[in-house]
This record gives sequence, C-alpha cells and structure tokens, in this order.
Amino acid sequence: MELKLFDSKSVSGIAHSRRPYWSSFSGFRDGVGVRFSPKLCSCRGAFPRVSVSSISENAYLTKKAIASSDPEKLVEEDYVYRINGAYGASSILFSGNTKVLEASDDEYEGVVVDPEGLPTNPDAFSSILRFSLSHWRRRQKKGVWLKLPLERAELVPVAVKEGFQYHHAEPGYVMLTYWIPEGPCLLPANATHQVGVGGFVINHKNEVLVVQEKYCNPAFADLWKLPTGFIRESEEIFQGAVREVKEETGIDTEFVEVIAFRHAHNLAFEKSDLFFVCMLTPLSAEIQVDDFEIQAAKWMPLTEFVEQPLIQGDCMFKKVIDICIARLKKRYCGLYPHQLVSTFDGQTSSLYYNDFDAQDTTCASS
Amino acid sequence: MELKLFDSKSVSGIAHSRRPYWSSFSGFRDGVGVRFSPKLCSCRGAFPRVSVSSISENAYLTKKAIASSDPEKLVEEDYVYRINGAYGASSILFSGNTKVLEASDDEYEGVVVDPEGLPTNPDAFSSILRFSLSHWRRRQKKGVWLKLPLERAELVPVAVKEGFQYHHAEPGYVMLTYWIPEGPCLLPANATHQVGVGGFVINHKNEVLVVQEKYCNPAFADLWKLPTGFIRESEEIFQGAVREVKEETGIDTEFVEVIAFRHAHNLAFEKSDLFFVCMLTPLSAEIQVDDFEIQAAKWMPLTEFVEQPLIQGDCMFKKVIDICIARLKKRYCGLYPHQLVSTFDGQTSSLYYNDFDAQDTTCASS
Repeated sequence: MELKLFDSKSVSGIAHSRRPYWSSFSGFRDGVGVRFSPKLCSCRGAFPRVSVSSISENAYLTKKAIASSDPEKLVEEDYVYRINGAYGASSILFSGNTKVLEASDDEYEGVVVDPEGLPTNPDAFSSILRFSLSHWRRRQKKGVWLKLPLERAELVPVAVKEGFQYHHAEPGYVMLTYWIPEGPCLLPANATHQVGVGGFVINHKNEVLVVQEKYCNPAFADLWKLPTGFIRESEEIFQGAVREVKEETGIDTEFVEVIAFRHAHNLAFEKSDLFFVCMLTPLSAEIQVDDFEIQAAKWMPLTEFVEQPLIQGDCMFKKVIDICIARLKKRYCGLYPHQLVSTFDGQTSSLYYNDFDAQDTTCASS
Repeated sequence: MELKLFDSKSVSGIAHSRRPYWSSFSGFRDGVGVRFSPKLCSCRGAFPRVSVSSISENAYLTKKAIASSDPEKLVEEDYVYRINGAYGASSILFSGNTKVLEASDDEYEGVVVDPEGLPTNPDAFSSILRFSLSHWRRRQKKGVWLKLPLERAELVPVAVKEGFQYHHAEPGYVMLTYWIPEGPCLLPANATHQVGVGGFVINHKNEVLVVQEKYCNPAFADLWKLPTGFIRESEEIFQGAVREVKEETGIDTEFVEVIAFRHAHNLAFEKSDLFFVCMLTPLSAEIQVDDFEIQAAKWMPLTEFVEQPLIQGDCMFKKVIDICIARLKKRYCGLYPHQLVSTFDGQTSSLYYNDFDAQDTTCASS
C-alpha cells in the first residue's frame, strides 16, 4: 500500500489556527496552576515572569497608587480613576463596588483567573467578569483562562454568556477561554491523543502469552490476542506494558523494546490513538486470569497463535506479528527508552531510540 | 543514566480505575455520536447494538405496552404504571408529565443522552434528569453520557447538582458523565497526550535547517534549533513534520523516518507529551521565514549546529543530534510509516516500523 508523503492540503490551506504559543519540547504547564516552565528545544514563550495583575479597583487607588513605580500600572490606575470619575456609580460595570477578577499574567500576554478569588454570586460574577474583560482588553491582553471547579458550576452559563468557550475539562473542573484580540484564537489546543500499549510476551518454549477478553465483539470472540490497554496518566510506556500484562494475566515481565507503533484517528471522543507494540520477556510462568476483564489467558505455541485465521486475514495484525518474529530472529531492532535529564527544564524524560552504540548486544538480549 | 524497568508501584497498588471498557487497538467512538465501532485487536465491548431506550412514560404506556414483546420492557412499563398509580401527580418526579430523557444504549450497558432532546427549561431539565437517573438505575445501567452544547450551558449546573462530573470538553460542548453502580467509575478517561514533531532537515552541503523563535525564553534566545510544532487533529506524524517545516521556513521536504521519540509528563494542562524527531530530505533551498512565530531561519553547517554550547551542554538534545548523525552515516535505522487497512475495523491507519525486509535500501536512501 503506497504512502502519500505529500498531502498538499496538510501543508497549506487548512483553516486551523497556527498555535504558535507552545510546542512539544517546550513547556506550558497548566494555565491555572500559573506555572509556566521553560522546557526543551522549542523554548517558545517561556519567560519567568508571573505577577498578580489585577485586584480590586480600590486596591489600585489605595495601595498600588502609592507603591507602584511601574509606568504601565500607573497608566492603568489613572484609567481606573478616570472611569470612576466619569461614570461614578451610574453603571454597574464601573461602580465603586465593581472589581477586576483576581488573576495572574501568563507568559503570552494572557491572563489566568484565580479560581480562589471568584465571587460567590452568579450576578456579581457576571458584572465583574464583564468589567474584567474590558479592563484586560484595554491592557491589550490576549487569551483569558478561566478554570471553574465543579462546585462553581453555576458560574459556567455566566461565562458562556459573556463569550467564553470551553477549552477542556477533567472530572473536577472545566476550563473556559476567551480570546480578546481580533482574528483567530491562538490558544493551544487540548490534548489530542490516547496512548495504548500491547505486550508481546514469549517464553523459552516459543509460547506467546495470549488472552480472550470478556467484552468482545462476538465476531472476534475466538481470537487469542496480545494483552493490551491504555497507559495511565503520567505513566511511562514501558511501565504501562508491564503493568497491563501483569493485571490481565498475572505474569511478571521485563520490558525489552518498543517494536512498532500504530497511529489511528477519530476514535474515542474523536481523538487520535497511538498504540505501542512492546516486546517483553516473561519472568514468571503461572497465569492468574483477571476475572474483571479477561475471559481466558494462556501460553499458546507461536505457530498456533500466528495461524489463527483472524490474524492471517488481517494485514495490520499480521505485520505486527511478523515484526515481533523478526525481532525474535534478531533481524530487527526496536526502540529502547533512555531516561535523560535536559538542562532546558531540569526534568527527566524518556527518549526512545535504537541502541545503535550497543546494537548487537541489545538486539541479542531477547 | 539507568532506567528502572520495574516500578513496583506501577505494576500494582495504584488506586486508578481499571478502565476495562475500551483500549487502544479497539474502538470507542464519541459516546455522543452513538457510534461504537469494533476496531483492531483488543476488540473490547464492541457489540453492534444501539437502540433508543427511553422515551416519555406516556409513550411507554401507550405505544410500547401494545407493541413490545420484550419481557424487560414489560416489567419496566409495569414499574412506570405502578409508580404513577402510587404517587400520582403528587411528586414532580413521577408526575404524568415527567419524561425520561431521550437516549441511546451504548455497548457497555451505558446510556448516551441525545442532546437534541434536552428540555429548554433548566427546572424541567432538573426534574427529568432526576427521574431519568432513577429510571436508568432501575434498568441497571452503568455510565451515563451527557453532552451539553455551548448554547445549553445553563443546564451545566443542573447536571452537576444531580451528581454529574465533567469528563472532557471541546470549544463547542462539555461532556458530563454519571456512574450509576456502586464502586469506582470505569468509564474511559479523556485524551492524555499532546503530540509534537521536530524536523531534522539536512541538505547535500551538510547544512541543517534551523530556526530561532520569536516567543522564546531569553536564556535560549541565541539557540538555533530544529523546526518543531504540534500535529493537528487527525494529522499524520509524517505530514505534521513536513507541514511544520514548510510553515516555519518555507522549505519543502520529503519525510524519511521517525528517528526517535521523547515521552514527557505533566506539561500543558497536566497532560503528557510525545515528541517525534523526524528526518526529512529537503526538496527546495530558498528560505521564507514565517514572520508570525519565527525570528530567523537559515541553513547552518552541521558542525556549527552541533557545537552550540546549549546543545553540547544538554544530554537530551545532544543525544537527539547524535542519533540524527548516526542515521546520516547509515549506522541507524528509524521507523517508517506504512498505511495498512485492518479487517477488524475496515479503517486505514499508519504502522511505524523499521523496514526490516528492505533495511539496506531504506537506510541507504538518505
């Protein structure tokens, strides 16, 4: 099957936002945590400056007007003063009680609202949010990040009414965003992928560790397959493969290599999926089936495993097995994880590559 | 740096839900789209059955009581009748006007609420939702999926009050879930990863295509780095790498291989990041800098690129460049994407692996 290396539509012309903010190998860490750490390589937009930018107007007119020597702050204070002077209490937006939401500047001319400082009353929130948006617009801010905890769900419709959109959500909160400038929103997108692992475990008798699952399309009920599963939040691929095999079959294993990976699209929640085929060496033999999700598990002779009609009839599945067999015959070398620290962020992360410096020994180690 | 292959905590004992529902290499497609398609390999819980399960009580008592021969339906009709008989109009939950939300059964004993059938009034929604939950509980349903479009944000606090949690969100909607059974929620998690690409492009004069970015930590402002970026929704890695290089520098390229990949955690929105280092062959020479996000771009002699102090001083970055150079010297073979169709789902996806059958020619093609 031929692979199109050039899709002119993907090179140009698709109306996606460009997302120049953050890229992989750079670091943007949870806008609400207000922790933006410079990371490796792309190092986009990672200034160490984070400051509380907006508090109540009264605070501007009292504490800050005296203490601040920042020209921008002084202009802003003057603006707030003039607003108050011009409109007095005639407008709820600019009344003496209206505050600007507590927020921090982010590294990208954006604003991160502090969830701790949200008003309790939806009507008050509506006024303050509207005033805050005009305040931030005047300060030429760009993106506004508003994290609403589950227990503040009553504020969600208020924010949406003011023009906020959903960005992402986790069980305990929803993150909303507002893009102030004219033109397309350049805020970084939500996570795009699920990551799964499958374990190819083969013993010294040339038997493969296989399972049948409980929740299975009846058409594939007879298929003996590799143990598979999603990796967990912040879990390494090599750990996830070892864990899934252990959970489903009770077998302890040692990770050998990522043999191949599959990239598929439009799966759960329209997201994409990266599935890593991992070779593992068994460290135990006695199977304990996980009653929760596994119907049966066993050691199956490799030839019998490969000869299953459902595998023989499927070019994707067959290729994966062919690669695993090539690896067994030392005609193939997968990728091995190496934990490396980068000075760009001081963090340890895993770099997966062929062990080209020690290729003979690594590829012979299975 | 040594890699711990066994983290006993990850093998057992972490209090995560097991998520037996869907795994990679299987298919769960957007619960709200009510399209669950059986996919490759793990084939968990993919029954082709989707049916509208709940309509108004009146409908149960009129149309269905006559037409249905399903014993479960009859029991349910009897239940609804008895409830009405016992409580009459005295409770809003069980009044003659209370309906069950329009919904479809999913493949996993769950319920997917139809966003088109939501009541317009939040108070009405509250009653109907509460009644629907007790209805589904009695039918031993498990997970409830409730997708609320942005324009129905006023229903969010109502659902949260009834015990729903956020699951995920995209700009136009938020997905809420409710887990009916006792015990831990077994619904599949949200997407966990961002995916980025970097392009190592080297010409016949041994010059590397490098950029300096506009939005950059000042500490790294002098660094000439590889073009990088996120891949787009549903975009292939090989296409994303070609596109990013084209966008940032104007250079056309042909994808050669994924050389290595990096797995890092707790980056944007606490999610993980997979970054694929790709080798590309240039097809053009004249650089056109992207004013939007790139400060400067140029062809830089390989030796000069490698000798940059920031690269020499960073073991992650240096290793990536070492691997690229090893690939140039044909001492290394990365992974090449092959588009394969699987009979398990009829879909085409990309399998990345070493071209072991044609390894000599592939690795010599750069």
